[in-house]
Amino acid sequence: MEHLRIVVCPDSFKGSLSASEVASAVADGVLDVAPDAVVTCLPMADGGEGTLDALLAVWGVEPLTVSTVDAIGRPTSARWAVSPDGRTAVVELAEASGLPGVADAPLQPLHASTRGTGDLARAALDAGVAEILVCLGGSASTDGGSGILTGLGARLLDADGNQVPDGGEGLASVASLDLSGLHPRAREVRWRLAVDVTNPLVGELGAARVFGPQKGARGGDAEFLDGALRHWAEVLERETGAAVGQVPGTGAAGGVPAGLIAVLGAETTPGALLVAEAVGLPAALASADLVITGEGSFDSQSVNGKVADGVARLAAASPTRPPVVVVAGQVLLPEAQARAAGIAAAFSIAPGPVELDDLIARTAPRLRDLAAAVTSLVTAGRR
Amino acid sequence: MEHLRIVVCPDSFKGSLSASEVASAVADGVLDVAPDAVVTCLPMADGGEGTLDALLAVWGVEPLTVSTVDAIGRPTSARWAVSPDGRTAVVELAEASGLPGVADAPLQPLHASTRGTGDLARAALDAGVAEILVCLGGSASTDGGSGILTGLGARLLDADGNQVPDGGEGLASVASLDLSGLHPRAREVRWRLAVDVTNPLVGELGAARVFGPQKGARGGDAEFLDGALRHWAEVLERETGAAVGQVPGTGAAGGVPAGLIAVLGAETTPGALLVAEAVGLPAALASADLVITGEGSFDSQSVNGKVADGVARLAAASPTRPPVVVVAGQVLLPEAQARAAGIAAAFSIAPGPVELDDLIARTAPRLRDLAAAVTSLVTAGRR
Repeated sequence: MEHLRIVVCPDSFKGSLSASEVASAVADGVLDVAPDAVVTCLPMADGGEGTLDALLAVWGVEPLTVSTVDAIGRPTSARWAVSPDGRTAVVELAEASGLPGVADAPLQPLHASTRGTGDLARAALDAGVAEILVCLGGSASTDGGSGILTGLGARLLDADGNQVPDGGEGLASVASLDLSGLHPRAREVRWRLAVDVTNPLVGELGAARVFGPQKGARGGDAEFLDGALRHWAEVLERETGAAVGQVPGTGAAGGVPAGLIAVLGAETTPGALLVAEAVGLPAALASADLVITGEGSFDSQSVNGKVADGVARLAAASPTRPPVVVVAGQVLLPEAQARAAGIAAAFSIAPGPVELDDLIARTAPRLRDLAAAVTSLVTAGRR
Repeated sequence: MEHLRIVVCPDSFKGSLSASEVASAVADGVLDVAPDAVVTCLPMADGGEGTLDALLAVWGVEPLTVSTVDAIGRPTSARWAVSPDGRTAVVELAEASGLPGVADAPLQPLHASTRGTGDLARAALDAGVAEILVCLGGSASTDGGSGILTGLGARLLDADGNQVPDGGEGLASVASLDLSGLHPRAREVRWRLAVDVTNPLVGELGAARVFGPQKGARGGDAEFLDGALRHWAEVLERETGAAVGQVPGTGAAGGVPAGLIAVLGAETTPGALLVAEAVGLPAALASADLVITGEGSFDSQSVNGKVADGVARLAAASPTRPPVVVVAGQVLLPEAQARAAGIAAAFSIAPGPVELDDLIARTAPRLRDLAAAVTSLVTAGRR
């Protein structure tokens, strides 16, 4: 029999192991049973916070650093990365413009901005990449992506021709958009945004009303910001022809996709799929006999845009259609629903009645044992 | 692809589900995934208490009943069974001569006897069976099997030619064995004893010293009974030529195997193997693609004569060598040890951190989900 080819592509187990650590434990278990198996470890992420670290690990590259500003304009430095072939850059919104970076200061829902992320994107353009992946999530701002555009050289002008201040509040007074200073490559590269929500930019389910409060919007702030985003959408449509106010997903990260879709022609993609493509999962799957993915909790969210879902979709599209197995801290999704989502089987690492802390402490050895069991079963089935 | 052939042969999950209930839940899960699979359910037992019920279920026969005496000589009725082909009888020691039957009376370590079981065996001989399976375990007596022999017509005589009283104490004064009244078929049939211990009849690890106390032996009782069993072994050797005092396993059930080996040529067999053969597991395995067994706790005992071990041994000896999967309430045995014992994979029904009571309450649905996952994986591996 030819060597078993197994792709190990888990998400992290939050609060327990990183995706790389999970992959390593699973690979150990596979090799315990099938020492001559060809195991490809591709630690995954869902496109949110932590994605940059996952890509750094898989790409085997060091992060690049840019001196920039945080969400409230204070000097900071932020990381980004370029793939080994120099073709793709990854920029994580939370790096420069995230809530964690401003956790030591009062929230500024009206003034927080994504300008720092724009600085990172400009560095990527300067580096000559052909594609920029922007991982959304964890944003501190509701600026409709205006900060990023400003960082790239765009100017948001008021009725008097003066540049409006950064942040959501400034959007209310934008009268026109001056793109003459936009980075010359800004519209040449492919922009891909990792988006895991379907909220539109404005309205009851929009960026301001749904996500504003967690960024500090109080009293009439959310209402005001929603109005500012509506106005911003009107300006964008007038200037670019793109109507983005109701497009699903434009409500992510304080409306970042709105500005980037309209001005830069950005595309939104489920984060896990985007990461999967970035790490080369489709190519790895093309010759796989078995795929083992995993995450801390395998539940209804898992088959709705998370890593397991992305892996299952890509496996189903692969010529060999390898079976996908999920290993998880807990399995809450009924088996039938898992199968409907293209997951052949899902197993918990729990060895029996056990408390959460005990289980977390034993995650790595249990993952190894479970991966060995799964491999043993698949090997047996192939004889 | 031809239909998947799956044999489902679990033990009971003690405190939760009977072996039949476990098998049913597992079969449901298999059929959820592989509706056209050929599923053979053979609920198993380990040869101890509960084995009669398991065989009644698999054989699909009604129990037969004999009026007899319990371990301390009180009238009682006890069940036994004959296989559908009339060839094999099963007699469970605990039915007539067990501790549960005398739980309402003071323990009588010196006088308790297996005579009632002898009555059941005589009924089996009268029925014309060719083979008698005696399931040991749960005995209340330490009589070296003398009660069973007496029930079959043997006479234990003292120096004056008088019959000694039933029970271990009487063995001390046995001078000779009169087998002239032994049932004419007693030495024609095959006697198979389900034995799960390796203790010898006498000595530090013998029947009296190790198991006597749990049958009420206090003070010098165990010492006295050990001496009585030594004397009994001498008598047996003189009368039959068989030296059984140190034979591993003869210490089971108060020394029952000693008398039956010496006088009747009985064989001892690990209980689970004996039951497996009785339910027809070897024939079922011969064409199986997958075997699913299980038990409440899969631990180091499991691969040492218990059901999972017996199933694994028979599967390994089967021409198709089907992989054996264990489903369990808890999996305590490291995967490597399980594989060394011929178990391809062992999975717990625990879906994650969970308390024992919660898990017990969800045993059947979790078994169904787990069996579906296992089947899905094996099916995928076979493509």
